[in-house]
Amino acid sequence: MKVLVTGFDPFGGESVNPALEAIKKLDGRIIADSVVTICELPTVRRKAIVALREAIFKIDPAVIIAVGQAGGRMEITPERVAINIDDFRIKDNEGNNPIDEPIEPFGLTAYWSTLPIKKMVEVMRENGVPASVSNSAGTFVCNHLFYGLMHQLCIEGNKRRGGFIHIPYLPEQVSRSPGQPSMSLDMIVRGLEIAIEVALTTAEDCQLTGGTIC
Amino acid sequence: MKVLVTGFDPFGGESVNPALEAIKKLDGRIIADSVVTICELPTVRRKAIVALREAIFKIDPAVIIAVGQAGGRMEITPERVAINIDDFRIKDNEGNNPIDEPIEPFGLTAYWSTLPIKKMVEVMRENGVPASVSNSAGTFVCNHLFYGLMHQLCIEGNKRRGGFIHIPYLPEQVSRSPGQPSMSLDMIVRGLEIAIEVALTTAEDCQLTGGTIC
Amino acid sequence: MKVLVTGFDPFGGESVNPALEAIKKLDGRIIADSVVTICELPTVRRKAIVALREAIFKIDPAVIIAVGQAGGRMEITPERVAINIDDFRIKDNEGNNPIDEPIEPFGLTAYWSTLPIKKMVEVMRENGVPASVSNSAGTFVCNHLFYGLMHQLCIEGNKRRGGFIHIPYLPEQVSRSPGQPSMSLDMIVRGLEIAIEVALTTAEDCQLTGGTIC
Amino acid sequence: MKVLVTGFDPFGGESVNPALEAIKKLDGRIIADSVVTICELPTVRRKAIVALREAIFKIDPAVIIAVGQAGGRMEITPERVAINIDDFRIKDNEGNNPIDEPIEPFGLTAYWSTLPIKKMVEVMRENGVPASVSNSAGTFVCNHLFYGLMHQLCIEGNKRRGGFIHIPYLPEQVSRSPGQPSMSLDMIVRGLEIAIEVALTTAEDCQLTGGTIC
Repeated sequence: MKVLVTGFDPFGGESVNPALEAIKKLDGRIIADSVVTICELPTVRRKAIVALREAIFKIDPAVIIAVGQAGGRMEITPERVAINIDDFRIKDNEGNNPIDEPIEPFGLTAYWSTLPIKKMVEVMRENGVPASVSNSAGTFVCNHLFYGLMHQLCIEGNKRRGGFIHIPYLPEQVSRSPGQPSMSLDMIVRGLEIAIEVALTTAEDCQLTGGTIC
Repeated sequence: MKVLVTGFDPFGGESVNPALEAIKKLDGRIIADSVVTICELPTVRRKAIVALREAIFKIDPAVIIAVGQAGGRMEITPERVAINIDDFRIKDNEGNNPIDEPIEPFGLTAYWSTLPIKKMVEVMRENGVPASVSNSAGTFVCNHLFYGLMHQLCIEGNKRRGGFIHIPYLPEQVSRSPGQPSMSLDMIVRGLEIAIEVALTTAEDCQLTGGTIC
Repeated sequence: MKVLVTGFDPFGGESVNPALEAIKKLDGRIIADSVVTICELPTVRRKAIVALREAIFKIDPAVIIAVGQAGGRMEITPERVAINIDDFRIKDNEGNNPIDEPIEPFGLTAYWSTLPIKKMVEVMRENGVPASVSNSAGTFVCNHLFYGLMHQLCIEGNKRRGGFIHIPYLPEQVSRSPGQPSMSLDMIVRGLEIAIEVALTTAEDCQLTGGTIC
Repeated sequence: MKVLVTGFDPFGGESVNPALEAIKKLDGRIIADSVVTICELPTVRRKAIVALREAIFKIDPAVIIAVGQAGGRMEITPERVAINIDDFRIKDNEGNNPIDEPIEPFGLTAYWSTLPIKKMVEVMRENGVPASVSNSAGTFVCNHLFYGLMHQLCIEGNKRRGGFIHIPYLPEQVSRSPGQPSMSLDMIVRGLEIAIEVALTTAEDCQLTGGTIC
C-alpha cells in the first residue's frame, strides 16, 4: 500500500511552510508496511487541486493526507469537514481572492473527512503530541484543497481514504513575528507519523468527543 | 409577511440565556412591514427541532431566524453553514450527549444559511454593532437546530428563508464568572433588529469577505 | 468633597477614546455628596502628567481616577500597580517612543493604587458590570500617567486617594475593526459611577482574590 | 564563575513541572566558562525563598536565574518586574492562599530584574526560540520567589545578578488537557542555555521594545 502526503509552498508572507518542512522528513518512510510518498502543491486555488489529482493518478495511494499551516493554532488538528466555498481573506500565491464562490459549482455543500480523525487525536495525545479535532478548515486554499480531495475521492467511489490535517507555526516563524503559538518540527513529524499509522491500521473510528458548543 | 425568531432556554449551568432575553424584546415588533413572532425552544436535541417545526406550521413565516448563545464570542455572528453531526461536549438539558451521530441519517452533509449573512454583518457594522460571519456553528444543540431548520426549509422547497445567529454572553453573566467577553442586551437587540430588516429587504447578498485562513 | 476623573484624547489611529466619551457623561455629576470634575489629557508622555498636576492644583480633589482605553480587554479593570518605566511599542501623539527610560529618574520602582480596587470590582460585579483587577497597566502612556499620579500623591503625603482604571473599546470602534471585545458606553459609565462611589465611601479594601498565577 | 538555576516542584494538579525538567538537563553544564548548578524549590510561599537563600549561600553564584511554569503562555518570557504582593488564586503546595499580603512587610513595592532581559529575548529569537519580555510575573509563588530573590540580591548590594524566566507547558502536559500552547523540552532547554550565556556575557542590556500598550 502507498500513502500520499502533501504540503503547500509558503504563503502569506512566510518564507517557510511548516507542512512542507514536515513532509520532507517523511518522504520514503515505511509506516505500517506502506511507503510514504510526498508531493508539494502550489498555494493557488484550482492549481492545488489539479496537482493533487495528478499525484493521485500517478502514485495510486490507498490513503491521502493533505497537510497545511494553521497560523495561530497550538495543536495538530485533523479537520472534520470541508465546505464548498472559497472566501479568501488574503490573496493566494497567484493573487486570487474570490469571495463566496463555490469550489465545485455542482458539488455537494460539504464532505466529511474519511480519515479516523478521533483515533488520530487519541493516539497522538497518548504519545504526548498536543492534538484536537477541528470543526472548520477555514475558507482559504487549505479548505479548497481539502474539498477538492474529498470530491475526487467521492467521484472515484471512496476506494481511497483521505483528509486534511492543520499544523501550527514552527518556532522559527514565531521567533520572527512574536506572540503566536508554535510547535517543534520533530513534534509535528511525530504527530504526522502517528496520523499515517492510525489511518492505515484503523477500520472504524473511536468514540471521543471532538465537539464544540459553538 | 411574518418573521419567526427563536431562542433557547438557559443551558450549561447558566440561569439566563441572552438569546431568550433578546427575542422577548422583539415580540410583536413591526419591522419592514412584517410582524415579529417569537418562540422559546428547549435546549434538547430533537425536541428543539420538533418545537421549531410546529412553530413554523402554526405561524407560517417568510423568514426564520434562530438565535443562540455563544459563550466566549465577542460579536454577533450570523452562521454560514450547518453540518449534519451531533458531537456534544456537554450534556443538553435532558442529559443527551451523543458523539458523532448524524442529525438526519439520510440528510445532506451540510446546508448553507439562506439569509444574507454578509449584508447583515455589513449593516450591523455601519450601525456600530460589532459583527462578523462565523464559519462554524459548533456541534451542539445550536448547530443541531440550525441543521434541522435548513433541512425543513429545503424539504419545503426553500420558499422561506432562514438561518442562525450566535450572540455573546450578557454582561450580567460575565460579572458572575469573570474573564469572558460580553455584549449589552440593547446592543444585541439592535443587532437582531438590523438582521431581521436586512433579511426582509435584501434579495441578493453583498460581496464582503467573511472568510478565515484556517 | 471633589472627585477628579481624567481621560485621554484618541491615540493609535482611533478617532474616539472611550475614556473621554465616558467621562463626559460624568461631568458635574453628584456622587456620594461629591462633585465630579473631568479633565481631558493629551496622550503624550510628560505633558499628560503636567496637565494632570495642574488640574489637581486647580480643583483640589479628594479622589483622582484616571481612565484609559485598553484595546483587547473585555472588562473594566482597576489597575493594581504603576511601574517606573516607559517602553512604548507605538508612538504617543507627539511621536515619542522611548524604550526602557524611567518616568521619574529618582522615583520608586513602583506605586500601588490607593483606590479600593477589590471593592470596586466586587460592587461592579454585583451590579452586573464585568470587571476584574489588572496586575499590569502596560508600559505606555496609561502606565506613565498612573505612575506620575501616584508619585505626585506620594509627594503630597497621600492626603488624596488615586489610581487608574482601564476600560474596553466601544462597540463603534470594534465595528470598524472587527474581532475585538467591546463594552457599551452606558455600561462603562455605570462602572465608573460605581468606582467613584466606592472610592468615596470605602475606608478599607475588601478581601477578594484578584491575582493571577502568571 | 557559577550560575544557579532553580525550578519548582509540580503544582496546580500537574504531575510534572517543565521548569524542573528543563533545569535537570542543564545541571553541571559549562556555559561561558561557568558551571551551572541547579536547585529544586518547593512551590510554597516563604519556604521557596528560604531554600533559595540557602542555595545562594552554599553555591555563591554570580548569576541566579529562577525558572517557573507559565500555563497558557506560548513563548519563553523573561520577567521585567517583581511586585511585593501575594494574591494567590489557587493554593500553593502547602495550602496557603493569602490575599493581598506583602511578601516583605517593609520591602520596596517592586524590584526590576537585573538580568539583560531584552538581550536574552533578542538572542533567543535570533536562534529560532520564541521569546518575549513579560511585564507581569503574576501574584502567585513565581512572583513571590522572584521578589524574594531580588530583595536578597539588593540587601547584599547587588553584587550578583538575578531574575526570573517563565516557560510554557510541555507538550505532554497539553496532550493530557488539550487546548493550551506548549513548547518542546529541547526548545525550552535551548532557550535557557541562551539566557544563561547572555546573562554571563552581557554588561549592558540592548534597546529592544518589550512594552505593551496595556
